[in-house]
Order: sequence, then structure tokens, then C-alpha cells
Amino acid sequence: MPESPFAIDLEDIRSAAELIRPHVLQTPCIHHERLSKRLGCELFFKAENLQHIGAFKARGAMNAVLRLSEQEASRGVVTHSSGNHAAALARAAAIRGITAHIVMPHNAPEIKIASVRSFGIEPIFSEPDAQSREAKADEVQLQTGAVMVPPFNCAEVMAGQGTVALEILEQVENIDVILAPVGGGGLLSGILIAAKSMRPDIQVIAVEPELADDAARSLKSGQREQPTRYDTIADGLRTSLGDLTFPIIQNLLDELLLVSEEEIVTATREIAEQVHLIAEPSGAVSYAGLRSNTDRFKGKRVAAVISGGNVDFKAFPLS
Amino acid sequence: MPESPFAIDLEDIRSAAELIRPHVLQTPCIHHERLSKRLGCELFFKAENLQHIGAFKARGAMNAVLRLSEQEASRGVVTHSSGNHAAALARAAAIRGITAHIVMPHNAPEIKIASVRSFGIEPIFSEPDAQSREAKADEVQLQTGAVMVPPFNCAEVMAGQGTVALEILEQVENIDVILAPVGGGGLLSGILIAAKSMRPDIQVIAVEPELADDAARSLKSGQREQPTRYDTIADGLRTSLGDLTFPIIQNLLDELLLVSEEEIVTATREIAEQVHLIAEPSGAVSYAGLRSNTDRFKGKRVAAVISGGNVDFKAFPLS
Repeated sequence: MPESPFAIDLEDIRSAAELIRPHVLQTPCIHHERLSKRLGCELFFKAENLQHIGAFKARGAMNAVLRLSEQEASRGVVTHSSGNHAAALARAAAIRGITAHIVMPHNAPEIKIASVRSFGIEPIFSEPDAQSREAKADEVQLQTGAVMVPPFNCAEVMAGQGTVALEILEQVENIDVILAPVGGGGLLSGILIAAKSMRPDIQVIAVEPELADDAARSLKSGQREQPTRYDTIADGLRTSLGDLTFPIIQNLLDELLLVSEEEIVTATREIAEQVHLIAEPSGAVSYAGLRSNTDRFKGKRVAAVISGGNVDFKAFPLS
Repeated sequence: MPESPFAIDLEDIRSAAELIRPHVLQTPCIHHERLSKRLGCELFFKAENLQHIGAFKARGAMNAVLRLSEQEASRGVVTHSSGNHAAALARAAAIRGITAHIVMPHNAPEIKIASVRSFGIEPIFSEPDAQSREAKADEVQLQTGAVMVPPFNCAEVMAGQGTVALEILEQVENIDVILAPVGGGGLLSGILIAAKSMRPDIQVIAVEPELADDAARSLKSGQREQPTRYDTIADGLRTSLGDLTFPIIQNLLDELLLVSEEEIVTATREIAEQVHLIAEPSGAVSYAGLRSNTDRFKGKRVAAVISGGNVDFKAFPLS
């Protein structure tokens, strides 16, 4: 059998699933009757907003930390993140009983800072720009010898996120389409490898905010493009693709849909009102893509991944 | 074996579970790590807010409608409800393909009226007071010969609601306590019969708003007491117990906790912010009882039933 041309293969994801099973939730994949009727498809929500730390990120970070050798683990781990990966890595390190150094921009949302602290870890604050964050993380790594665990561009992290698709395939018979948001591409590339290896006929469709359309432009140009602005409400999707995630997306993705800010807000609100789940705007993007393209999904069995639910309630777009 | 002294027994609930299985969701029972740590117990949320029509009521109504003989079914069903039972009965009737007459007060929340209409049924409106509603329902019954399906004081409905407990016992190993809200007592009595028949050592604890403390007063006086006011935010719990539900509660309930309006609002908000579920205030009452009495649950494995999630978002107590 030829080597996989990609950073991960199905075996990596299966083995991640085995390893992280005691430490992550098998989140429900909830059928929604009323929206199915309205949209003309059979709709299931994969509720990763109910995952530990409130996002799928718990999976990849857990796999990465458990994969470290004893020797590596003894040096601790380090990352920089303004988002859910920070809490995910803090939690994974706490479970393995090792040190974690978490660099966060000083203007990160209170809820994300509190989440890291709930694992007994005091974040190291940096200036908000990407350069300052990376510089600070590099500095910490140099000083401590800790192992860097990046938020998405990392085989172990991608394999962990791919376990979401293994569960969907187990939970929903004859699924036709999986819809997932794309930011750095960790979740999307994991889902692509899992789904396309097991059931090549499953369509995997990515959804991206118009205001953060770097993945759409990357697929057109054939090379990784950078975001041009950082102000989409879907704050988890403001990053560009990685060199490990991009080739998988470029080769295996069936389609990418773009959604407006207004569509994201409407989707977030509908998920709360109709499904009774709190999604963060990044987590509602997959459903936004579905409800704005219903013709595309008529009669299909569709799973939309709600990737997370951590949201500052003062800014929650309910009304 | 002596006949059960109560309106239903475990066999009724098991047989309801079998009958309604194709038509209701086995809702998830979600472990919440962070709140467990904070409250000092192992906490699981039985998420009936994710059930069809957004509440456990889908279960009892479905069982009642499927139990009708062909002859009864041909006459249709009738009920009066301002709440989730209205939509639940409309849905059950639609599934069986029979007529439903739903009497609702003309000031019922838009969301509840819309839910009934989504099953192709136009509600019959009455004045809001209990007398007018009952009179109108009686009138409809007389005219049409339809079978009355009451919201809680009905063996088939109670047996259907009891399937919630069968699922909790299947989903969570070694559960110590089940917490449930009490309004008319349909859900609570079903849970009591199921849990106490299968595992007499399980504690079942009811939670009731202080502003609708008729169940607490009934347990003290030994007879069914009436509510003295109807203004708790937990609008699903404003009713008094029925003559079928009260004896079960009187004989089998371990404890009843009262919660203030403020405690209900805080619980509703925490369930949204921390668990990422939308509970209606009535649905958050069980968790309110837990978080205000943590000593009572230290080290225990506790399932709190989130009974529903249908809420008017203009009135949702988020901030």
C-alpha cells in the first residue's frame, strides 16, 4: 500500500480515537425534525459545543499531549492561542499532569482566559498581533524547552479533530454530506481524511465567512493565501490554512461555500431558538452555509458540525 | 404479585418506551466536567430541550395517541394547553394521521402557537383563565366526540414521560440522584415509578418554584393544594398536581426543594453560558435546586432533567 501523501491517514485518526476516548465526550449528533422539514433535508447537528471546554479542540490537544514521549512530556507544552485551543491544551496537560505554558493576547475574551485558569494555569500575556504572540511563545519555548503544540498545523492535532467524523459515521446511518467550518483547517482536514477514507462517496463541504475568505482564495490560486481582514464575527475562523492542512483540503474537498456576517448571525440565532443549542458564531457557520443553499442539499442526509459554543454573552446575537 | 396501587407501573413505562421509540429522540445525557468540579458532584444533564417539539411532552402525548383503539383514533383527540403539550399532541396526531383539536388561550406565546400550526393544525382560541379553557375543550369534545388527552393527569401520558428515567439509567452508570421539576407531576411521577421500580436506592428529588409551591404544600397537608399565584417565570410549572400523579409523589418522592425566581434565572443563564444549552426557565429549575443545595449532592452522581427549551427570546434572561 502506498504511503499516504498527506500528514495523516485514517489509521492515525482511529488510533487517536482509541487514545483520547477516556478523556473526551462522544458528543450527540442530534436530528432536528422541524428544520429538516423546513429545509427539505434530513438534518443532524454534531454538537461539539457540548464537548469538554466547549469545543472540538479538546480532541486534537488531548491526542497531541498523550502522544508525547515521557521525555518530551517532562519538558511540558507551549502554545499561543486567543481561542479554544488554549483551554484545550491546558486541560490536556492537566490530565497528563505536565506543565503547560499558554501565551494569550492580553485582549483575549475574559471567558477564554477564565477557562485556561480553571485548569490551574496562569496565561502568559502578549501583545495581540500574530508576530508578538509567536515571538512570546518562541521565547517561552527557548527558556523552558517545552514542546510546541500548534492549534491546527500539526499531525496529532489534525488526527484528533478527525475523530469527529468517525463519530458522525457511527451515529448517523447513510450520511450523504458533512458540513464543517474552515479556519486553519485542522477540523476540516481531519474530517476529510476520515470521511473520504471510509466512505469516498460522502460529500464534505466547507463553509467560510466572506470576511475571512482566505481558504476560498487559496483553492482558486492553488497556494495558501492570507486573510485580508480580521473582523468577522466568527472569530475562530480568522486564521489562514497551514502547510499540512492545505494539501488535504485542496485534494479532497468537494465544495466551499461562503457566508455573509448576516447569515452567520441568523444561523446562530436559529440554532439557539429552534435547536436549543448555544453555538459560537464560528460554530454556526456550517449551518449558515446549509440554510443559504438549501437546493444544494434537497433530500440529502446532512450533518452540520457545531464546532464550539464559547461566546461572550454580552455580544451574543440573540435579538 | 399485588396490583400496583398507582395509575402506572414499570411495565407501562417499558411498553411505552417500545411503542414511542420510532417517534421520539433518545436525548443525550451530557456529562459536564467543569460544573461537576465546581459543585463537587458528577453532573449529567438529561437534555429534553433537544427532544422533538423541544420538550419531554413529546413522549407522553405520543404514547397516549398510539394507545388509542382504531375506533377512538377515528374520533380524533382534543386537549387544552398553553404550553408544550399542545405542540406535542398536534405532532402525535399528525404522525398517527388523525385529527387534533387544540384549545389555547388567545394570549399564549407566539412560539407555542407557531409550533402547533407547524403540524397543520389551527388552534381554537379561548379566554386565558382555566375555566374558559376547560369549557371550550369540553364544548369541542361534545361536538366532535374527540378523545380528551390531558397534559399530565393521564396514565398513558405519565407512562410516556417515565421513559426519560429509563434512558437515564441506561445512559449513566451508577446514578445516585435524579432531579426533576414538578408542575402537574406527569414527568415526576413517571420518573418515580421507573427509577424506584428498577433501583429503589436511587434518590428522586423534585424542584419547584417558591412562587408555585403547591406541591410542597400538598406534601405537607397530605391533600392536593392549589397554587395561590401564577406569576413564576417557570411558566410550565404553574399548575397543581393531579389525582393520579399526587399519590405517586406522596409515596415515593425523597425530597422536594424550593427555588427562588432569582435562582431560576441564574440557573437558566449558567446552563446557556457553561453547558451551551437553551433551557426554558421551567427546564432550568432542576439545576437551580442542585446549585443552591450543593452540600446535599457532594460526591454523588446526579442527573438533572432539563425538561424543555421553548422560550420567547425577547424574555430570555441572558444578561
